[in-house]
Amino acid sequence: MTADIHRPVATPKPPYYAVIFTSVRTAVEHDDYAAMAAAMEALAAQQPGYLGMESARAGIGITMSYWASLEAIAAWKRNAEHQVAQKYGREKWYAVFRTRICKVEREYGAP
Amino acid sequence: MTADIHRPVATPKPPYYAVIFTSVRTAVEHDDYAAMAAAMEALAAQQPGYLGMESARAGIGITMSYWASLEAIAAWKRNAEHQVAQKYGREKWYAVFRTRICKVEREYGAP
Repeated sequence: MTADIHRPVATPKPPYYAVIFTSVRTAVEHDDYAAMAAAMEALAAQQPGYLGMESARAGIGITMSYWASLEAIAAWKRNAEHQVAQKYGREKWYAVFRTRICKVEREYGAP
Repeated sequence: MTADIHRPVATPKPPYYAVIFTSVRTAVEHDDYAAMAAAMEALAAQQPGYLGMESARAGIGITMSYWASLEAIAAWKRNAEHQVAQKYGREKWYAVFRTRICKVEREYGAP
């Protein structure tokens, strides 16, 4: 089952880790993009240490993923299928992208 | 001048800090929301320690703001006009929201 990435994720008490992935797509529409993005969401959710994902695109795309540890993030970055997606991302899908790896220190919200 | 929040921000070499603000709007459309959001973007950009902002909404809204220090984040949270916006956010604009305060430890991207 794929998580709902259009709701704030219920994460555990900090500290935990976040990957902030921001991007601007290239002007060309690639047929494989949407399917690969969905496959990567489903695959990420199966990884050890995965805590959730949130994503929105409106000009800029922002995808947050949350993880239990830096080791979990490093393992996901090395995942073979994910490596293929990263290569396509660099080569054709994204005109610009940034990946930021963070330690979440505090969290609050409602409800 | 308001920064372009629809492009990845050029941030300095880590470490620096990020505030991840995720939200789902209430079903009611409030006339004051768009103007207040724009005013808060402009006001944030004038604060000491502000490094940039990125924002997208598609079901979920994700607004990233980047800061030089935790002190800069705390001062922005205490800002009087921002306090009014936070109150409206809690009381009428957002059905759900989460604020996460993070230390950015690593960053890479292209170009």
